Amino acid sequence: MASGAVARVTAVRQTEEVVVDLGARSYPVVVGAGVLDGVGERLAALGFRGRAALVTSERVGKLYGARVGGALRRAGLEPIVVEMPDGEEHKSMAWMARIQDRLLEAGLDRHSPVVGLGGGVLTDVAGFAAATLLRGLPTALLPTTLVGQVDAAIGGKTGVNHARGKNLIGLFHQPRLVIADVTTLDTLPERELRAGLAEVIKYGVIGDAALFARLERDPKAPLGDPEALVAMVAGCCRQKAAVVTADEREETGARAVLNFGHTVAHGLEALTDYREWLHGEAVAMGMVAAARVSRGLGRCGAETVGRIEGTLKRAGLPTDIPKGITGPALAQAIRSDKKSAGGKIRFVVVEDIGRTGFVELSSEEIVSRL
Amino acid sequence: MASGAVARVTAVRQTEEVVVDLGARSYPVVVGAGVLDGVGERLAALGFRGRAALVTSERVGKLYGARVGGALRRAGLEPIVVEMPDGEEHKSMAWMARIQDRLLEAGLDRHSPVVGLGGGVLTDVAGFAAATLLRGLPTALLPTTLVGQVDAAIGGKTGVNHARGKNLIGLFHQPRLVIADVTTLDTLPERELRAGLAEVIKYGVIGDAALFARLERDPKAPLGDPEALVAMVAGCCRQKAAVVTADEREETGARAVLNFGHTVAHGLEALTDYREWLHGEAVAMGMVAAARVSRGLGRCGAETVGRIEGTLKRAGLPTDIPKGITGPALAQAIRSDKKSAGGKIRFVVVEDIGRTGFVELSSEEIVSRL
Repeated sequence: MASGAVARVTAVRQTEEVVVDLGARSYPVVVGAGVLDGVGERLAALGFRGRAALVTSERVGKLYGARVGGALRRAGLEPIVVEMPDGEEHKSMAWMARIQDRLLEAGLDRHSPVVGLGGGVLTDVAGFAAATLLRGLPTALLPTTLVGQVDAAIGGKTGVNHARGKNLIGLFHQPRLVIADVTTLDTLPERELRAGLAEVIKYGVIGDAALFARLERDPKAPLGDPEALVAMVAGCCRQKAAVVTADEREETGARAVLNFGHTVAHGLEALTDYREWLHGEAVAMGMVAAARVSRGLGRCGAETVGRIEGTLKRAGLPTDIPKGITGPALAQAIRSDKKSAGGKIRFVVVEDIGRTGFVELSSEEIVSRL
Repeated sequence: MASGAVARVTAVRQTEEVVVDLGARSYPVVVGAGVLDGVGERLAALGFRGRAALVTSERVGKLYGARVGGALRRAGLEPIVVEMPDGEEHKSMAWMARIQDRLLEAGLDRHSPVVGLGGGVLTDVAGFAAATLLRGLPTALLPTTLVGQVDAAIGGKTGVNHARGKNLIGLFHQPRLVIADVTTLDTLPERELRAGLAEVIKYGVIGDAALFARLERDPKAPLGDPEALVAMVAGCCRQKAAVVTADEREETGARAVLNFGHTVAHGLEALTDYREWLHGEAVAMGMVAAARVSRGLGRCGAETVGRIEGTLKRAGLPTDIPKGITGPALAQAIRSDKKSAGGKIRFVVVEDIGRTGFVELSSEEIVSRL
C-alpha cells in the first residue's frame, strides 16, 4: 500500500506539461516517465474518435508499437499501423508518398489523427505526410529519441530531404499533442543519446545558464536518473516552446537563435553526405566553431569557448573539425545552405553562457575565424 | 488629350480590389481589365526583390508569359520561367516535384515569390509546390480562367490529384496577392467560359439574389462587356472572400456553403474519370440535382428549381444527369468523396435564390430524390 502511494507521487512528480502557446493552435508537450500509455486518453479528450493512423519505424514499432496501439484502443480509437524503414535515407518524397498511399487506403478522413512514433526522421516524414493529406490531418507526435524530444517534435517543422539538400521540401504544421516519454530513451543507442546531449547543451548555451552549469561537471549524469531526465527534457521543451511562440514560422528572426552551431554543422553534414556524423555530433563541432567565431569577433571571452568545448568533450562529443575538411570547401557548403540569403548569413554568436546575439557574416568570414 | 483622360477614368472604374481578411495574412484580389501589367509593381510594394519564379502552362505562357515577365522585370524582379503542360492529368505529385526541382535549380530562397499564371490546375499545382518548398514560399496567383478568377485562386486551397481521388493531396497556403485580369478571358475557349459561368451562377444561388437576377435573363451578356465582367467577377470574389474569412480552413462549416452542387458534381466526375465534363459542367448538373433534393425535402419551391435550371440552360450548360448513370453507381461515387464523414454527408440545400441551408443526408437519400 505504502509503496503504491509512493509510486503515484513519483509518477506525478515525473510528469511535466509544457504548453506551446499559439492561440487557438496551442498544444501541450507532455514530458514524463511512462506517459506513452496516456496517448489514447489524451486524443480522446481532444475529441478524436474512430480510426487513427499509427506511423512508426520498423525498429521503434517493434519496441513500442504494441504498447501505443493498446493505449489507443483502450481509449476507443482504432489504430491502423503504417511502418517505414529506419534511417535518414528514407526521409524522402518517395517514402512520404508511400505513407500517404497507405493512409488513404486505410480510409482516413480529415478528422483522423496521425500518430507519429519514432525519432526525428519519422516525426518529420509522418508530420509532412499528414500535413499534405486532405489539406492537413491532425498529428500527435511521440518522439522516442533525445533529439526528437527536445527539438524535432516541437514547433511544427515537417519535411523531407531533396537531392539538393536536407529539409528543402517541407512546411510548418503544428501538432495537436506531443508526448515525450523519457523511458523510451532506455532503448536508444549510446551514440544517439550523446548526440541528443549536444542539443541539450545548446539550450544551456543559448538561454539557460543554470542548465548548462548542471551539465558542465558531468553531462551524462541525468541520463541514468528518470527524474533528472524529465526535468532536463522539460527545461529544453520550455525554451523551445517560448521561441516557437515568439516566432512560429521563422519570420521575425527570433527562432533563428535555435540555429546556434547549426550553420557550420549543416556545412559539415553536407560535405560528408550526412554519412559521417549524427546530426548532434555535427552540431557539437558547429557550436565550438560558433564559439570561436564569437571570440574572434570579440563577442565573448576565451573562458566561454573553453566551457562549451569542455562540456561537449565530457559528453563524449567531437569538438574539432577534422583536418581533411578544407576552409574553402566548408565555406562553399555553408553558402549552399538554405538559410543563406543575399550572400550574408545571419550567424548566431554566443556572448556569455545563456546569452546570444546575431551577426551578418559571409561564409568566408565564418570559416576564416575557425 | 480628352480621350486619354476618359481612358484613365475608365481604367480606374474597371479596377476593383477585394480584400481577403485574414489578419496578418490578409491579401488583395485585384480585379480589372489590364491589371496583369501591375503585378511587378505590386510585388515590389510588398517588399519582394531579386528572383521570382513565373510558373505557367504551355498554352497560357505563350499568350501572357512575356507580358507578365516584362511587368516583373520593370519592377526590378528577375523572373525565372517554369512551364508545365496544360491539362488536369498533369495535376499530379510527379509534376509538383518537377516544378520544385526547377525552382530549387533556379536558386530561389525563402523570400522569393512564386507567381502562378494560368487556370485552376496551374494555380493549384504551383501553389502546392510553393507551399512545400523551403517551408513555404510566398505566392502570387494570376488566374486566367473564369473558374480560377471567381473561385480556385482565392482562399488558399492548393493541391494535386491522387489515384484515389481529386485533390486528396494538398493543403491551405494563402497567396500574398491575386490578380484577376478579365481581358485574359478573351482567349478562353467558349466551353470553358460557359463552365466558369456555372460557378458564377452558383454564387448567385447561394448568396447574391441580385447577381442571379442579372444573370437570369441572359447569363452570357456580361461576357462581351469588360465593365460588366469586372463587376461580376469582383462580386463573386467578394462573396468568396467573406466565406474564406469566416472559415479559412473549413473547420466551422461556413465555407461548406461553397459546395452547393458539388456533392453530386464530384460523384459525376469520379464516375466518368473526369473526362466527360469540365468541372463547371458537372457543377451545373449538380446544382440542379441539389435544387431537386431541396425541393424533395420541402426546403424550396418548384419555382426556385425552375429558375436555377432555366438560367443554367440559357448559359448553355448541361442540367440533366445522363440516363447512362445509374442511381447506385452515383451513390457509391458520392460516398467515396472525401467530404463524407461517418456515413452522412453535410449537403447544401437551397431555400430560395440567395439563401441556403444544410442537411445531413446519406448518399442514397440524395440520389433517391434526384
